[in-house]
Amino acid sequence: MGSISFKGRDIISINDLTREETDYILSMGDQIENLSAKGSANLCGKILVTLFFEPSTRTKLSFDTAMYKLGGQVVGFAEPKASSVEKGETLSDTIKVVENYGDVIVLRHPLEGAARLAAEVASVPVINAGSGSEEHPTQALLDLYTMKKEEGKIDGLNLALVGDLRYGRTVHSLAYALSMYDVNLKLISPDQLRMRREVLDHISKRISVQEGNSLNDLLPDLDVVYITRIQKERFPDLADYEKIKGSYKITPETLKGVKDNLIIMHPLPRVDEVDPAIDSTPYAIYFKQVKYGLLIRMALLSMVLGTI
Amino acid sequence: MGSISFKGRDIISINDLTREETDYILSMGDQIENLSAKGSANLCGKILVTLFFEPSTRTKLSFDTAMYKLGGQVVGFAEPKASSVEKGETLSDTIKVVENYGDVIVLRHPLEGAARLAAEVASVPVINAGSGSEEHPTQALLDLYTMKKEEGKIDGLNLALVGDLRYGRTVHSLAYALSMYDVNLKLISPDQLRMRREVLDHISKRISVQEGNSLNDLLPDLDVVYITRIQKERFPDLADYEKIKGSYKITPETLKGVKDNLIIMHPLPRVDEVDPAIDSTPYAIYFKQVKYGLLIRMALLSMVLGTI
Amino acid sequence: MGSISFKGRDIISINDLTREETDYILSMGDQIENLSAKGSANLCGKILVTLFFEPSTRTKLSFDTAMYKLGGQVVGFAEPKASSVEKGETLSDTIKVVENYGDVIVLRHPLEGAARLAAEVASVPVINAGSGSEEHPTQALLDLYTMKKEEGKIDGLNLALVGDLRYGRTVHSLAYALSMYDVNLKLISPDQLRMRREVLDHISKRISVQEGNSLNDLLPDLDVVYITRIQKERFPDLADYEKIKGSYKITPETLKGVKDNLIIMHPLPRVDEVDPAIDSTPYAIYFKQVKYGLLIRMALLSMVLGTI
Repeated sequence: MGSISFKGRDIISINDLTREETDYILSMGDQIENLSAKGSANLCGKILVTLFFEPSTRTKLSFDTAMYKLGGQVVGFAEPKASSVEKGETLSDTIKVVENYGDVIVLRHPLEGAARLAAEVASVPVINAGSGSEEHPTQALLDLYTMKKEEGKIDGLNLALVGDLRYGRTVHSLAYALSMYDVNLKLISPDQLRMRREVLDHISKRISVQEGNSLNDLLPDLDVVYITRIQKERFPDLADYEKIKGSYKITPETLKGVKDNLIIMHPLPRVDEVDPAIDSTPYAIYFKQVKYGLLIRMALLSMVLGTI
Repeated sequence: MGSISFKGRDIISINDLTREETDYILSMGDQIENLSAKGSANLCGKILVTLFFEPSTRTKLSFDTAMYKLGGQVVGFAEPKASSVEKGETLSDTIKVVENYGDVIVLRHPLEGAARLAAEVASVPVINAGSGSEEHPTQALLDLYTMKKEEGKIDGLNLALVGDLRYGRTVHSLAYALSMYDVNLKLISPDQLRMRREVLDHISKRISVQEGNSLNDLLPDLDVVYITRIQKERFPDLADYEKIKGSYKITPETLKGVKDNLIIMHPLPRVDEVDPAIDSTPYAIYFKQVKYGLLIRMALLSMVLGTI
Repeated sequence: MGSISFKGRDIISINDLTREETDYILSMGDQIENLSAKGSANLCGKILVTLFFEPSTRTKLSFDTAMYKLGGQVVGFAEPKASSVEKGETLSDTIKVVENYGDVIVLRHPLEGAARLAAEVASVPVINAGSGSEEHPTQALLDLYTMKKEEGKIDGLNLALVGDLRYGRTVHSLAYALSMYDVNLKLISPDQLRMRREVLDHISKRISVQEGNSLNDLLPDLDVVYITRIQKERFPDLADYEKIKGSYKITPETLKGVKDNLIIMHPLPRVDEVDPAIDSTPYAIYFKQVKYGLLIRMALLSMVLGTI
């Protein structure tokens, strides 16, 4: 892996990465943790431009913090209405302007393909912080990193992705990412919210995948439960929502008989998919994901800027 | 006082502080002024998380500046709508996320008790920048610090709190704070906006308090006038408002015969409670309060992070 | 020019500057580029306060980046609604508050004269980032700097300002700025959007000015085309707009026969005044203006703070 370099590269889709590159990024998470413990500020004098055409406090806070912890600075906007976009500027022009201000661009955009376009235009590296409904590569990388840190490995894991598998870009990127590893994957959702066909087709060729509606029977065999929020708005009939909601909720009851090493992950924010009573158990890893996310983003910023 | 340490402590309510601790904080205001004159950047590498669930330019600017002057960085949000709260996240979850990003949290929240809850959840110190209608401890501390700097002491002062004593959290926290000292306090307001009963009960046991409607007769005896904005919206009958408004306005006329050492304070923003003609007189201290506020917040951040 | 000092000065209107001072500022653009290439952070420990009472992503990003590249910090707000102004505070009071927080203030305001008022009140330097419809001095300076860098000189140039000359403060400030030099200026616009009378009167006394409606005939003689966006809202009859719009659009066709040294400038954002096919030609300078703008703002901040 010594010959892998990410200097100047864009991070647009998890599918652009080989397994070897992905493992390399995960290993850099550890390295950046060591460096920052020593107080290294390897991005001193560098500027990150954050362009959030769609609000996302959590992801923006994570990238901002990552940059500051490395000694860098951040400019940008958190809402499209504060931008020249309102005056009719194209994304391409916006990028050609802001590439003068920063050394790296982090972009979130509602449209599929926006991050790819930005990367083609920009003379500096672009990191996709979510575009359209399918791509959120840094979230997938931090999810992999969490599994590796908490389970010691990714190959061989029994995992379930649970909840809304249709609309959540987090689970799409994660499913693609997991398909690079030797895992056994369950996709648990109500029928209305099944995993998208194109994702399923892609990953089914690579790993063992089973779809289902019920989580509880599977729980005793699982190493990882990755649960997501089911949004009321997805259900024309509210009664359907109320019935379904309960069956995907993790409580102390549902965790009886699970493996000791089970970890429960969640991209957050949570509403009521996971009973707060779980928070204090060793299974609850969702807040630790935030910390791992920070490390992975610190690693990615350092890597594309060529400082590690 | 040498044994007092605030490292790791939360600053939630002025009522959590003893007089000895309060005096210690005020003395640290002077110390931080000396340190920063020497260019000390004792919070270098530290990150402040500002969570403003209720907008407040003035308080946010003050904390941001305090952190920057100490060499630290700031992440956070200035409006709830840019946050995950819109997606239904609990305050407790938000805190468990952002404690991964920063070394100290400054919180403003519309609900009573929010800052206390945040402090219980967070593994890092929480400073209350205003929650509900009663608590704004850093404002009270900067108000005390202003009195100490401008009058040389707090004990023995004749003070009047004037204007809207019912809805302003600033005057509630300040009244609690003053009740630790040996002061003579007048509470001057229209009947509709009298000081809240629970505050009055608390402070009346400790210090001499008189309520009244008229400021002008009292002025010649006062050392400190602390005046606040009266909001039109509080009056069902606009004629009442117009009549009352005038009687709480400080003009060059009303200041005839006052003591030389009188200081006029105001939490700002002012609308028309204080005639701008007063600004150039030695009585006008309201803009200097801003400077003292910056020093007190620099001191508090340094203290809870254990660097002074 | 060695005796010129801008330390402590306000930058409010291009008309406050002599030609000698203007040339000095432009020369500082080069100097700051050299300094920053060496990694100089001459504003370390300084704080810029940005008060944007009118949103402007582009200008705010440019000033923020300028300050960060010099090692300084930035506090402020990007939208009036996040400010105390909503509570009825006067601009004068806002300035007296924020001058406690920063070493220099950058102000954008919708009202004519607001920047001048702020400068009179503030004890720290104020830089006007656009106020009312006439003044945007830092844009004019960066435009001059662009011409000097790209053409090697300003004196002797044949220039055309094209498009909306009535409502755009950019072209007003630039016209005033150009009138200090020995240039030949064409003002090309639809009749509804002709240059304001007061600007025309001022500059006509100093330089050769011709007004006209058609750009294409003039193009072969021009060194500089400065084109601006024509806004649909300015036309009561949409058919008028559609007809006019086309005649001020620069395409590869319209550029046949132009001088080799022609440069096309635009304050951005562009909508469709310049065909993107032009972007890759050597005539297209509009994205380089962004870079020059950053240098001029770095120079101005350093100059008023007395560090260069």
